[in-house]
Amino acid sequence: MRKSLPKWAICTLLLTPSLLLAAEPATPQLAYQLVEELTTEVGPRLAGSPGDAKSVEWATKRLKSLGFDKVWTEEFITPFWQRGHARLEIVSPFPQSLVLTALGGSIGTSADGVEASVVMFNSLEELMAAKQSQVAGKIVFINKAMTKDRQGSQYGKVVGGRSKGAVEAAKLGAKAIVIRSVGTSNNRFAHTGKMTYEEGIDKIPAAAISVPDAQQLARILAKSPDAKIKLNMQTSSEDAISHNVIAEMTGSQRPNEIVLIGAHLDSWDQGTGALDDGAGVCIVMATAVLVKQQAKPKRTIRVVLYGNEEGGLVGARAYAAKHAQELKNHVFASESDFGAGKIWQFDTKFGTKALSFAAEIQKKLAPLGIQPGNNDAFGGPDVSVLKPFGVPVASLEQDGTDYFDFHHTPNDTLDKIDPKTLEQNVQAWVIMTSMVANSDTDFRQ
Amino acid sequence: MRKSLPKWAICTLLLTPSLLLAAEPATPQLAYQLVEELTTEVGPRLAGSPGDAKSVEWATKRLKSLGFDKVWTEEFITPFWQRGHARLEIVSPFPQSLVLTALGGSIGTSADGVEASVVMFNSLEELMAAKQSQVAGKIVFINKAMTKDRQGSQYGKVVGGRSKGAVEAAKLGAKAIVIRSVGTSNNRFAHTGKMTYEEGIDKIPAAAISVPDAQQLARILAKSPDAKIKLNMQTSSEDAISHNVIAEMTGSQRPNEIVLIGAHLDSWDQGTGALDDGAGVCIVMATAVLVKQQAKPKRTIRVVLYGNEEGGLVGARAYAAKHAQELKNHVFASESDFGAGKIWQFDTKFGTKALSFAAEIQKKLAPLGIQPGNNDAFGGPDVSVLKPFGVPVASLEQDGTDYFDFHHTPNDTLDKIDPKTLEQNVQAWVIMTSMVANSDTDFRQ
Repeated sequence: MRKSLPKWAICTLLLTPSLLLAAEPATPQLAYQLVEELTTEVGPRLAGSPGDAKSVEWATKRLKSLGFDKVWTEEFITPFWQRGHARLEIVSPFPQSLVLTALGGSIGTSADGVEASVVMFNSLEELMAAKQSQVAGKIVFINKAMTKDRQGSQYGKVVGGRSKGAVEAAKLGAKAIVIRSVGTSNNRFAHTGKMTYEEGIDKIPAAAISVPDAQQLARILAKSPDAKIKLNMQTSSEDAISHNVIAEMTGSQRPNEIVLIGAHLDSWDQGTGALDDGAGVCIVMATAVLVKQQAKPKRTIRVVLYGNEEGGLVGARAYAAKHAQELKNHVFASESDFGAGKIWQFDTKFGTKALSFAAEIQKKLAPLGIQPGNNDAFGGPDVSVLKPFGVPVASLEQDGTDYFDFHHTPNDTLDKIDPKTLEQNVQAWVIMTSMVANSDTDFRQ
Repeated sequence: MRKSLPKWAICTLLLTPSLLLAAEPATPQLAYQLVEELTTEVGPRLAGSPGDAKSVEWATKRLKSLGFDKVWTEEFITPFWQRGHARLEIVSPFPQSLVLTALGGSIGTSADGVEASVVMFNSLEELMAAKQSQVAGKIVFINKAMTKDRQGSQYGKVVGGRSKGAVEAAKLGAKAIVIRSVGTSNNRFAHTGKMTYEEGIDKIPAAAISVPDAQQLARILAKSPDAKIKLNMQTSSEDAISHNVIAEMTGSQRPNEIVLIGAHLDSWDQGTGALDDGAGVCIVMATAVLVKQQAKPKRTIRVVLYGNEEGGLVGARAYAAKHAQELKNHVFASESDFGAGKIWQFDTKFGTKALSFAAEIQKKLAPLGIQPGNNDAFGGPDVSVLKPFGVPVASLEQDGTDYFDFHHTPNDTLDKIDPKTLEQNVQAWVIMTSMVANSDTDFRQ
């Protein structure tokens, strides 16, 4: 079978003298194998749900079988929000159903639903500039389109309608809010995601319709500004227990120095969370295994699989609180949470002295087609919580051009991951993590 | 505004001396305008449903406003099948929901649903070769993939599992059947379509799951052959009234000679039937208008918008029965029912003598990128019903490469139509229909 091994696999084998010592031999496609398991055997894993608990069980068992030195979970309390049925109908003049999904955290409607005419805005800003008389008693519709680029830079500019739209609409007396999906595909999937309420402002139901349905609603309103729609949806919310899953490859020389590589284990409920963030989970799991196969790292590599990222970094905050005293020993942190696209740039947030080491990493990453980046890395959503505590971070930037075609929709499934591109991710993560974990450099300096 | 008119539009204007005589001026993009109206103002139009009735009303009104000489409807009785909720769950060992839809005509399950283990086959043929002992008491899963090509040639090879699977599974004692969607997209939409039962064979529920869900189920069965699934779905069926909508541009010289151009007005309920067959409806409506704008045709152009094609050519059979005496006067028939892709070939089913006229049509079509075809044209599903009565047919063959990405799914919506390609269709239809309607040729000879 050697004949069929790709070149890089042979390199990996040559570089891994301790291969035979691993508890379970790592295959070249370990990350893909893991994400296949996670998405098939667990599937959706909404924070607080049985799927979430199952993913914790899967990760714990799997990390142990992969030969990590320590594996443990850390419990936290989290809101467990669930969607029930959701239906949006054009009542008049053109009766038909639109494809929608409740936004995460939204209240439901009454059993009879909410029926009203619609006031359309092209953006959250336009809604915020509106008058009470335009909005009161109506259902607000924010019809803001999102465009694609490699960085997914438009997401931040559009997502405000989702996260803050309900509050702004309620301030003006709206009965409910429906937004155009924060996504870049014209497939008829509605994009969910977290929305928030504000103390003292009425809570109103919030949902998203797919891009083609938003276009349809806009056309209907152009033909008939008085069109009536009816929203009927159920949701529920309660407190539940969830867990961060943590595993370590103990450092051989400076075990107290922690190199944190993370991802989030929870997903939205609509898909199987292959891109968001099954890929990331399995990239960092495989990375730690492959680095240790090269040689036991000098610093400790800590894999943190965060719970409830989607509901608002709940697991990340629990981690930061629990490990407050230890954060000074976190010498480095990085997260994979932007799908499974090719890594094209390496960014850091290091002290000035450490930038020469960043350049060394960059040099080693270059053969993978990764360009030098900036020193203003985000680090990843969960890891970003550690930045205010001075933890140095880095980002292996993934090509997210198509990420928002699938993100938070039922269409986020395993078939959307290209195994070859996933492997390029793992190779880059192995290079970065290995160099960081075997270095003496203080990235804070 | 002249500056912004495309070249072909100017050509159309030059060719249309009677433009100002039309009841409503036809715009260059008339077909697109019509399909926008049909899919927005009516939306889904499942045979027998209120949407179906609304589409008949829309078409009648619109054909009148477009200046047809005669517009009428012809009633027929049709089964009115409806889907209720549908849910498929992996019960064990990996609990999760799969995306599915009931197949058209299927019975529902009991209120409690059907729970059983699964037996997977790679094709209908493999199921038919199975033994009772393999299948009895189980839910059959046919996991046959469909590939793409311009002609959609694989549809016929895969669709048997959908249409005949329930009968073959029931013969071997299956409790229900679930098939992989007969479609070519890895979007997570389930593909509906007509299935049939057979007298004397038990009726069992039949549903389709999306392609990613079929892959998921296959992976689950590979890991756990004893996996249990539960199907719960409701459907209903009753008799209803529907209509074919017919409109004529009366011939100036031989009004009794009928040139039939058709499409089907009904659609499945999941999408808005933009490609199937809103596009076809609006192509033939626009064609008749544009041909008459050139000059009143010598023969009568009859537009037939068939009802309930999807449920098994119900409207087409009603038309053939009602017009049995008149079919000898149908000098030509052709249907547009394969989406809105570019026309690339012209086929006929003419008598030998008429082939020289077919070649003349082909010559005129060539500048549109349309190649000469064969004399074995299908004509279209509804029109094919007229072939046994000797009616000559032709097919303007559309590029269907992506058709089965959308066909019969919720994703068949207006945004999937490229207005420019739709217009190429109209141009081809105008050339063909004008030549046929102004010719003396007997295509039977």
